Amino acid sequence: VRPIGFVSRTSQHENDRDRSLMAKVVLDEALAPALDGIEDWSHIYVIFWLDRVNHKEEPVLHHPNSGLGIFAARSPIHPNPIGLTLVELVKREENVLWVRGLDAHDETPVLDIKP
Amino acid sequence: VRPIGFVSRTSQHENDRDRSLMAKVVLDEALAPALDGIEDWSHIYVIFWLDRVNHKEEPVLHHPNSGLGIFAARSPIHPNPIGLTLVELVKREENVLWVRGLDAHDETPVLDIKP
Repeated sequence: VRPIGFVSRTSQHENDRDRSLMAKVVLDEALAPALDGIEDWSHIYVIFWLDRVNHKEEPVLHHPNSGLGIFAARSPIHPNPIGLTLVELVKREENVLWVRGLDAHDETPVLDIKP
Repeated sequence: VRPIGFVSRTSQHENDRDRSLMAKVVLDEALAPALDGIEDWSHIYVIFWLDRVNHKEEPVLHHPNSGLGIFAARSPIHPNPIGLTLVELVKREENVLWVRGLDAHDETPVLDIKP
């Protein structure tokens, strides 16, 4: 896998709670044309790489708090550190998507976008 | 990324149309406990590796038929060959999930399951 872009949470509007909940997905500029038509969707899936999750040699099988299996919980600790979130697409500006509801840190590598 | 299991479409009930539309996700047996609690969900996301997609050196930007950008289309040709499908969970048998609606070939590597 290789990043197609990164999450950017650096808000210039820290006093604006609504905007602070927004995040940008900044794609490689060369990939901007691959977003053509995305504006027609209200929501998109963002698939990202959980690059800050500490993985252990032995796979974790159960979520520590709920006792659920990790595939039955919204836990970031999976055998593959792949994150998936359905987000609201607020607007597109060329290679940049403004989205609401993305639970990913600043600078998280993005792997894919799906309508 | 590494497979956590594989898609199995080998149906023993070829005359049964409903069953032929079902597929199994067969996880590594060691990961069976990580499915505990998954039965409570009617639908799950399956993330898989599109191992039969021929990737080109130059990224494809537009879907050939619709003219949409590839991130705005349900095209398998993405920079990362990651497939995502929301499927109906029919039943679980230890490390095996019976699902309906999985658009993946037999023996496709599975990367993740999310509720």
